[in-house]
Amino acid sequence: MQFSKRVTNMQASPIRKLIPYADEAKSKGIKVYPLNIGQPDIKTPKEYYEAIANFDEDVLSYANSHGRTELLETFEKYFAKHNINFTKDDIIVTNGGSEALLFAAIAVCDYGDDILVPEPFYTNYNSFFQIAGINVVSITTYAETGFSLPDKSEIVKVITPRTKAILLSNPGNPTGKVYTKEEIELVKDIAIENDLFIISDEVYKEFTYDGLVFTSFAHLKDIEDRLIIIDSISKRYSACGARIGCIATKNNSLFANLMKLAQSRLSVATIEQIGAASLVNVSDEYMKEINKEYSARRDVVFNALQEMDGVICKKPLGAFYVIAKLPVENAEDFVIWLLKEFNVDNETVLLTPAENFYGTKGLGRDEIRISYCLNIDSLKKAMNILKEGLIKYNKR
Amino acid sequence: MQFSKRVTNMQASPIRKLIPYADEAKSKGIKVYPLNIGQPDIKTPKEYYEAIANFDEDVLSYANSHGRTELLETFEKYFAKHNINFTKDDIIVTNGGSEALLFAAIAVCDYGDDILVPEPFYTNYNSFFQIAGINVVSITTYAETGFSLPDKSEIVKVITPRTKAILLSNPGNPTGKVYTKEEIELVKDIAIENDLFIISDEVYKEFTYDGLVFTSFAHLKDIEDRLIIIDSISKRYSACGARIGCIATKNNSLFANLMKLAQSRLSVATIEQIGAASLVNVSDEYMKEINKEYSARRDVVFNALQEMDGVICKKPLGAFYVIAKLPVENAEDFVIWLLKEFNVDNETVLLTPAENFYGTKGLGRDEIRISYCLNIDSLKKAMNILKEGLIKYNKR
Repeated sequence: MQFSKRVTNMQASPIRKLIPYADEAKSKGIKVYPLNIGQPDIKTPKEYYEAIANFDEDVLSYANSHGRTELLETFEKYFAKHNINFTKDDIIVTNGGSEALLFAAIAVCDYGDDILVPEPFYTNYNSFFQIAGINVVSITTYAETGFSLPDKSEIVKVITPRTKAILLSNPGNPTGKVYTKEEIELVKDIAIENDLFIISDEVYKEFTYDGLVFTSFAHLKDIEDRLIIIDSISKRYSACGARIGCIATKNNSLFANLMKLAQSRLSVATIEQIGAASLVNVSDEYMKEINKEYSARRDVVFNALQEMDGVICKKPLGAFYVIAKLPVENAEDFVIWLLKEFNVDNETVLLTPAENFYGTKGLGRDEIRISYCLNIDSLKKAMNILKEGLIKYNKR
Repeated sequence: MQFSKRVTNMQASPIRKLIPYADEAKSKGIKVYPLNIGQPDIKTPKEYYEAIANFDEDVLSYANSHGRTELLETFEKYFAKHNINFTKDDIIVTNGGSEALLFAAIAVCDYGDDILVPEPFYTNYNSFFQIAGINVVSITTYAETGFSLPDKSEIVKVITPRTKAILLSNPGNPTGKVYTKEEIELVKDIAIENDLFIISDEVYKEFTYDGLVFTSFAHLKDIEDRLIIIDSISKRYSACGARIGCIATKNNSLFANLMKLAQSRLSVATIEQIGAASLVNVSDEYMKEINKEYSARRDVVFNALQEMDGVICKKPLGAFYVIAKLPVENAEDFVIWLLKEFNVDNETVLLTPAENFYGTKGLGRDEIRISYCLNIDSLKKAMNILKEGLIKYNKR
């Protein structure tokens, strides 16, 4: 029996493929600090659980495809707090940011069309687009420059009549990059001049540090009709398991087409929508505390990286990731070695090799992504293990 | 701005497009019996809500992509009750049956491949396949024969090298058809002889009447490697809003490829999985009572249809739908007329025109689908309105 090429060509999750090595280390009694996944350790707001416990409808019926009204209103208020003007008629509730991205891509690209994406990028972008028959055209950015966008000429030279959109993760997973006002304006100009959609994945919006002001594409004029915003409650409320996100656009005709996609899968889980709707009641203090905590974690990780010989990375300004170039030839080999052959006081770390975050073959082979979703004590120990590990690995 | 052809060519939900007419009738004070959607009115088991209220993890984290172990075990036990041997290693939890169908189609078909589907069929099959670039090749079945499969020669003549699978809904939405052992065997032979996958959507498995014994494709030998079963808790436990389904296969290599699709969307909502896992504790009595109730509803609807002049339909043996051929030229026109211009004591009905359930243009124009998800008193009144409406409509 033959399966489809599109599914056989898909890569299994590069983030998850190292799990067996970690499990083997654990089975030998070694503690493994997981710096590999973006699963926050912060408590989910109690409002979420209270709302769910109070649910008292006899029949757990389909929500409408658009989303439950109270949740759409919660998103509307949330956007308004960030000076973003999306009413509930511009928003569709989705199964996490993942489904929102898939809907956006399908709505603007046919089979064989291109989407521009700065690399390194979130590996699941590849998966979504492979399923949908869309080509990812990478715009390479570099650790040495903090993953800033290249000059306009570098970007426009890869645009063809099949290019339909540019997709950015801002703040960036896996880079921690927060695009400057100038970079945002550059993308705007390119989109207008080349008639492209802008798909802006802003799920890490709250996670910017050092007093940086976040610029959303939704703050800009003249691109309302070509802008699609992807959002999710997963990261900001530590509610990844809710699978609640949304897609938003001011383009009414696009909205109508996105609704067809939403109708085809009927609805998003009702009870999780009710939980998510209650998050409008979470105090601003909650987000401030979390931001402070992640900022401190970022400092621990970045400062430690700076002290390691031969490691290259610029200070990441957002999200909770950093990509670091290591003084090794093959980061995956190093990551596996850490799990199989190295420990400090019976502890080691699980990192993500960054090669799979690149669309261009051969790039990122000496890079890793660190996700700093652990408490500060654990992060300090984990970074020390990385430091000692690098020294020992290079002396083998 | 141009959107993709695949999204602009998609039809908006034919079931939902009549809602504005119903809303208008309601605004005039007319009660509208909804015979249009498959949303059961039965109470969701209390076990579901209890499990959710007892959820006490601090962090609402991602479930694994495969599904939570306790829910996989619940599905395993459920299948075993029906003499179907799927272990938890053969099952992946999905966002309802909808996502399971999409995964199945993507895993076996590339862009431009064909899937055979007996028509009339669930309209969302069209949507899923349009998104995935797959052609639905219809095998026409008829109200006059109770939507039985045609002869083998009729089916095999549309098979080409691009045909990858045959998809059946059994018991059938929208037909109420339950395939006989002989029909199941026929499909098995065709699949083996032509090297096709069988995708069997069995979400209405419990809804068979008149003592009929349901035959699952999973009861057959020699097709384990080419069989994909779609299941969902939505209908049997009146839990449509949970969006919990599963896809199951004994083909390990196919399973591994389906897991890549599951990983690409990370996970299914955690709390709904916990609710669904508890359904293993629902008594067999619950299902028996529901079956009895729907069987009685089916009788009310079918008996009423039989007494209407010029209406053609065979007794449906499963699910909670019936397709009836009416003595009208254009069923959609009649359905709209019922909402706009007709009532009995200020009450009318909302039906679904069946034309959109057909892949072949022009078929089903004089047919409607009735969903009998209402209590018996309401159904009696609704059927009387249909009867009176038909008489008056044809005397205009």
